[in-house]
Amino acid sequence: MQNIYFFGDGTAEGGASMQHLLGGKGANLGEMTNIGIPVPPGFTIPTAVCVEYLSDGCITDDLRAEVENAMGRLEGVTGKRFGDGEAPLLVSVRSGAAASMPGMMDTVLNLGLNDETVDGLARRSGNTIFAYDSYRRLIQMYADVVFDVLAERGDNPMEVALAELKRERGVKREIDLPVDDLRTFVEWLKAFVQRSAGRPFPQDPREQLWGAVEAVFRSWNNKRAVEYRRVHRIPSDLGTAVTIMAMVYGNMGEDCGTGVAFTRNPSTGERCLYGEFLINAQGEDVVAGIRDPRPLVEMQERLPAAYGQLEEIAERLERHFRDMQDIEFTVEAGKLYMLQTRGAKRSGNAAVHAAVEMVREGMITKQEAVLRVDPDQLDQILHPTVDPDEEVTVLATGLPASPGAATGRVVFDADTAVERGGRGERVILVRRETSPDDFHGMAAASAILTARGGMTSHAAVVARGMGKCCVAGAKDLDVDETARSFNVNGRTVREGDWITVDGSAGRVILGRAVLVEPAPSEEFAELMAWADSFRMLRVRTNADTPHDARRAREFGAEGIGLCRTEHMFFEGDRLQPMREMIVATDLEGRRRALQKLLPMQRNDFCGIFEAMDGYPVTIRLLDPPLHEFLPHDPHGVGELAESLDVPLEQMRHIVDVLTEVNPMLGHRGCRLGITFPEITEMQAQAIFEAACDVAGEGVTVLPEVMVPLVSDVEELRRQIELVRNMAERVFAEKKRRVEYLLGTMIELPRAALTADRIAEVAAFFSFGTNDLTQTTFGLSRDDAGSFLPFYVQSGILPDDPFQTLDREGVGKLMEMAVKLGRGTNPKLKLGICGEHGGDPRSVVFCHEIGLNYVSCSPFRVPVARLAAAQAALAGGASDQG
Amino acid sequence: MQNIYFFGDGTAEGGASMQHLLGGKGANLGEMTNIGIPVPPGFTIPTAVCVEYLSDGCITDDLRAEVENAMGRLEGVTGKRFGDGEAPLLVSVRSGAAASMPGMMDTVLNLGLNDETVDGLARRSGNTIFAYDSYRRLIQMYADVVFDVLAERGDNPMEVALAELKRERGVKREIDLPVDDLRTFVEWLKAFVQRSAGRPFPQDPREQLWGAVEAVFRSWNNKRAVEYRRVHRIPSDLGTAVTIMAMVYGNMGEDCGTGVAFTRNPSTGERCLYGEFLINAQGEDVVAGIRDPRPLVEMQERLPAAYGQLEEIAERLERHFRDMQDIEFTVEAGKLYMLQTRGAKRSGNAAVHAAVEMVREGMITKQEAVLRVDPDQLDQILHPTVDPDEEVTVLATGLPASPGAATGRVVFDADTAVERGGRGERVILVRRETSPDDFHGMAAASAILTARGGMTSHAAVVARGMGKCCVAGAKDLDVDETARSFNVNGRTVREGDWITVDGSAGRVILGRAVLVEPAPSEEFAELMAWADSFRMLRVRTNADTPHDARRAREFGAEGIGLCRTEHMFFEGDRLQPMREMIVATDLEGRRRALQKLLPMQRNDFCGIFEAMDGYPVTIRLLDPPLHEFLPHDPHGVGELAESLDVPLEQMRHIVDVLTEVNPMLGHRGCRLGITFPEITEMQAQAIFEAACDVAGEGVTVLPEVMVPLVSDVEELRRQIELVRNMAERVFAEKKRRVEYLLGTMIELPRAALTADRIAEVAAFFSFGTNDLTQTTFGLSRDDAGSFLPFYVQSGILPDDPFQTLDREGVGKLMEMAVKLGRGTNPKLKLGICGEHGGDPRSVVFCHEIGLNYVSCSPFRVPVARLAAAQAALAGGASDQG
Repeated sequence: MQNIYFFGDGTAEGGASMQHLLGGKGANLGEMTNIGIPVPPGFTIPTAVCVEYLSDGCITDDLRAEVENAMGRLEGVTGKRFGDGEAPLLVSVRSGAAASMPGMMDTVLNLGLNDETVDGLARRSGNTIFAYDSYRRLIQMYADVVFDVLAERGDNPMEVALAELKRERGVKREIDLPVDDLRTFVEWLKAFVQRSAGRPFPQDPREQLWGAVEAVFRSWNNKRAVEYRRVHRIPSDLGTAVTIMAMVYGNMGEDCGTGVAFTRNPSTGERCLYGEFLINAQGEDVVAGIRDPRPLVEMQERLPAAYGQLEEIAERLERHFRDMQDIEFTVEAGKLYMLQTRGAKRSGNAAVHAAVEMVREGMITKQEAVLRVDPDQLDQILHPTVDPDEEVTVLATGLPASPGAATGRVVFDADTAVERGGRGERVILVRRETSPDDFHGMAAASAILTARGGMTSHAAVVARGMGKCCVAGAKDLDVDETARSFNVNGRTVREGDWITVDGSAGRVILGRAVLVEPAPSEEFAELMAWADSFRMLRVRTNADTPHDARRAREFGAEGIGLCRTEHMFFEGDRLQPMREMIVATDLEGRRRALQKLLPMQRNDFCGIFEAMDGYPVTIRLLDPPLHEFLPHDPHGVGELAESLDVPLEQMRHIVDVLTEVNPMLGHRGCRLGITFPEITEMQAQAIFEAACDVAGEGVTVLPEVMVPLVSDVEELRRQIELVRNMAERVFAEKKRRVEYLLGTMIELPRAALTADRIAEVAAFFSFGTNDLTQTTFGLSRDDAGSFLPFYVQSGILPDDPFQTLDREGVGKLMEMAVKLGRGTNPKLKLGICGEHGGDPRSVVFCHEIGLNYVSCSPFRVPVARLAAAQAALAGGASDQG
Repeated sequence: MQNIYFFGDGTAEGGASMQHLLGGKGANLGEMTNIGIPVPPGFTIPTAVCVEYLSDGCITDDLRAEVENAMGRLEGVTGKRFGDGEAPLLVSVRSGAAASMPGMMDTVLNLGLNDETVDGLARRSGNTIFAYDSYRRLIQMYADVVFDVLAERGDNPMEVALAELKRERGVKREIDLPVDDLRTFVEWLKAFVQRSAGRPFPQDPREQLWGAVEAVFRSWNNKRAVEYRRVHRIPSDLGTAVTIMAMVYGNMGEDCGTGVAFTRNPSTGERCLYGEFLINAQGEDVVAGIRDPRPLVEMQERLPAAYGQLEEIAERLERHFRDMQDIEFTVEAGKLYMLQTRGAKRSGNAAVHAAVEMVREGMITKQEAVLRVDPDQLDQILHPTVDPDEEVTVLATGLPASPGAATGRVVFDADTAVERGGRGERVILVRRETSPDDFHGMAAASAILTARGGMTSHAAVVARGMGKCCVAGAKDLDVDETARSFNVNGRTVREGDWITVDGSAGRVILGRAVLVEPAPSEEFAELMAWADSFRMLRVRTNADTPHDARRAREFGAEGIGLCRTEHMFFEGDRLQPMREMIVATDLEGRRRALQKLLPMQRNDFCGIFEAMDGYPVTIRLLDPPLHEFLPHDPHGVGELAESLDVPLEQMRHIVDVLTEVNPMLGHRGCRLGITFPEITEMQAQAIFEAACDVAGEGVTVLPEVMVPLVSDVEELRRQIELVRNMAERVFAEKKRRVEYLLGTMIELPRAALTADRIAEVAAFFSFGTNDLTQTTFGLSRDDAGSFLPFYVQSGILPDDPFQTLDREGVGKLMEMAVKLGRGTNPKLKLGICGEHGGDPRSVVFCHEIGLNYVSCSPFRVPVARLAAAQAALAGGASDQG
């Protein structure tokens, strides 16, 4: 194993292709060196060495010898010597993993300084202040990074003391302190280190070097790095590379400086050199926040030659790496050095803008452009966001359950939401958790905030379906719905108070935050058109109203993959007849109530069919257990008894009998249609009457009737027979036929396992991956909040399976179902309508197993389109663009 | 296709091997004819013709011609002519399917009589009364069976009129009526038929014949036949054969008679001719209940020659068919005719006794004996039963949830059950439904009765585990737990009233019924020993206490397959520390409470290990969600808050936070041990300390620690690591090692789907088919009562999947898991501990997929042993007996 990759003097042993070995930083320093860009010389210890160190806990003799040797080369190249009193070589030790983990791991600068070399540096640079300022920095960093003296401390006593000193002397910058003060401060620092760490700051440069190297190795496993990898799904066994590099100084005088630059604007993607810099400073100062960095354009005035060179290098780097770059540089006595270059993090807008422009500039292909944009980032483009430039008071954080941001007055129940919403007020519905009873309130609110529940709780699912922002499971909220207030971390928020919900970040903000409205650009449309030309999956939407259906079409939906009919029964004038139907004790009573629902339901379908003219509409028959439509509080039960003229005792009995221990596994889905065939018949009648009516007006209708919660082919066979008979009856009455399909959800393991049988009668399958995940894992999404986050956090599960499809279990069932189903019925149409249909990684899986379409909430449609295109491109689809 | 199989004159075209074609009756009539036993001549129309008729709805010309031809043969053999005024041939038309469906389908006797032939019959027999009595019978039967005039009627006006007539004349038997009365009654009957059916009784014998044949075909699909097939799982597309047979007359005088005989006593299996007969009667009279049939032994006096012949024939038939026979016979003028023979239905005791005796007699092999006994029948042998000879008042029927019978005084809550039970009273716990809170009351009660819940509701599962009889889901019961009474069909039963619960038949009986205690015989032990020598599956038991463990060993259990530890925490002195643990807000608090539970838990295990000396004991770690241990009513919550010195508000909050929407899919199983590792550690400590302690006393312990509700290998890996570390700690402390295994339940689809991964760390799998069925079907056993019975009744599902394992879905997952698991770990030990482990058909499946053992409740152990033996024999295992 090669332990050292040297770079300097115009050549390097490493290069950009060796990122997995040398980390992004080390690989790109080598690459820059090789293409003649000025980089201070140095060498990189590869990631594998770190992995070995972390497993064995010691530095091998080989490594020690090779580093010694490399240090010798460095001394040769720089003409300085490490630890030398006259011409001291100083180095930085920098972390750098294969995957970008900005700022998560440690770095130590100015190594090689001690009581002796500091004076050598002062002499050689003619700048004692600079020398002592550098020495001070080293001791501070070393104490922090190597000796870990700040662990478990809220403040940093070294910074506090330094700030006090500057305050006393009335200066802002350390380099404006009198040199004696700096000397005294260095002595104080050394004493502080001895006191805090129980050992002295090492005077031996070699001891410093190895201390720093080992600390950087260890920093792979520090808390924030572990957390960052978890969030960004970076494997935890890669290790970091370590780059040891000769120091160059931005803090040596007023012709020095340091800064960061982006080759394009990371917020907008606009082509221009964008960044910040500081005169007479070291890199850490730019981010430390003590001094205000200046916009990069000002560098043109202050360091014109270096700026020109930076412009030219930025251009070259972008061309060379064929992507937008994020660059760190230092100017030492007017001379520019590049310390790092990497692909730039960018906003969704910037990603789209830059990708499209690069195609126009001929830098990349359309395929590459489509692959460059992270589908998840499109959310930012499609939803309002909290203005990042404004300061806000975050009351609490919860799960980012539905993206976007909204401000409004707090209300605590659905009726108040409707009432105040009806008056034109913007309200935010705050609940411990929501239930279908809250549906009308959720519809009236600008945003939803709950204290309990996960990413797929009722609140989250409904909110995403509505494209309404939502923070769910904000655990710190102590919601008192009776007192109409919530307490959170010592504050009380009352009904009518303003708050802002940031559903993209999961933040609950006090008061009215400034929001930025989304404005999808021309470039966005162009990129999406390219994506559409590459993808093989069709993208449909989950929509229950004509309004949602139209919106989804604007986002590019090619049909409805899931129209939930139950939502139609929760609305004002429908709930009462629905309840009448449920409460009826005989078939006649149910039929009477269903007859009242029929015209309303028919009307719903007319609107949806019109909105989806020319596209298929998959309508799912009634799914939820009937008790969801009934009130459960004594007051509501009393009212219902009165309004339906049913004795109170009997009403209580009905509510009681319908109550279920595990409603998710209860009397719902097609089990309703089997035991109450009249419900299925009414729905089928409404669907086909609506279809015939709008077809008569010239609309192209393609209804697909979907039977939910099928576990056995016989259930489906009987439901299909009911629906088909009704279709024929309606066609005969209306003297008009429409094409239609009959199919089923695959949302229970048994349906997947017996898909060959089910495909005997189904024309299509739609994978209901929410319920399939619940049953496959035996995991209620409403109850998983007490352990699932811990499972993901501690790595038991790689992802929340309700967000990203579990390939190993749920996915295996899906693959079986696809194979078994197509085995019986090769023309079987296959789709997905669970939440996963809008998750990019899950969309890739759907592409891989050969589904025909995915369906997701309207706002996720562009996300799914892009993800589908990327899946097709990754799978080697031919260039049709 | 041959439409006719003739028998008569000593030879027959059919025989015993053609049962599927000719039905049991037709086949055996042919067989008897061929072996020279006196049978009236006749012919059989095969089942396939019925199937064709039921599909096409008409009699083919071919069939018509062949029947005509056969009637001609019959006339030749008998020397009579059908419809002839002088020597009329009379026939019966009898149903008879391949599977025995006694009395479910129709039969018509005396066909061929009309206003003319009746007088011919009178003349020829010299018995006018007999002739008119036969004519009366024909018209009555024809009106009922062919014209269906009794449909939807409560009474039978023809029988009512006949009874009135007999009352008026002061006679008991129709044949004692004056001949003119009979003539007048026949006229009345013809008028009644015309009035009721709108058409006359046909005078044409051929029209009669075809009317009867078609009616018998149709009777395959009458309501009671359909229901019988459903209950006995007989396919509905087999059809019935029809046998047309010359009449012989038991009602022609005092030297005539008819009866039924069993070759052995069907209640005890004792070897003796057993049955009933009537002098001067037709077959239907024996079962009609108007005249009291006489014990068969009396026939020895009344018809000695025929009796001697019957004895001899019975002996021959048993030898010939090699099984106990159920025979119908008629004596005409002293001459004996056999009308039917079939394998006799028998009680569990009789089945065992007869099978063992037949082996002793050299009639059958041991293997055949083992195959002869229906495992389900063993229940009768092992539990008390309600004396079938006593009359009882049935208040209601429910599900036969746990077999046996018990009497006791009604109580409505667990505490009262414990209190009155503690005073030595026999009590029956009656609840709407039970929850784990009721556990102590169930333990104290003699029987459990619930108004809600299915065969696998909490009450049913716990009762079966305890071997306690239970009727569940007795829907007519309106239980008012507050008023301490229940109403049922107009009656009120109050606390303290006596009732009897018949868990084998699902009956709730008013008052104290007479019970018959079980007394397993020597023959039972012998048969079970043979079964044990044939079976390949091991049989373990599900037991949570030393008492149950000992009882199970008496029943032949070879270890414990499921020891549920949670039951241990519901008992008196454990519940409080358990609640303390749950309510604790920090690790320290939980540890303190767990330390109190440790010695109790250890003690439990000591007792169980001792009881199972030499056999493996599989201990499942804590499984139910924690809220099951907490009170939910406000009063209970208040008491708990006080007793644990926790503010009421906080206690309410804790109870509230732990409440789950779908507890079945919630924070339970290993999810508890993952989030609260200290619980797993305490349990592991108790297990291994107990194991070491009893091992020190010379007991052979083989603990198998089982992790519940695993969905991913990583859960298991982490729990196993905890347990293994604790085992090592205990071994070091106790200076003693014991052998042990670590494994998991496979009870979630995902566990089965990823069994290859799970087998990397598991030494055994135990299929938890209750939960696996729930999740595979998406079906809560607590909530399925509202639709699952309908599913089974209407044939959507062939069986209740909680009673008989669903091969197509759940079974497929099990097969996958077996294959995947053994693929990774060939030494993997495989068992089942769900309720299905005690269901004979499921045991057969377990044998087929190659499990190592089944585990079931103690009382089902013999059932499983027998079923396992039958599975092995059916699979062609070699004779080791």
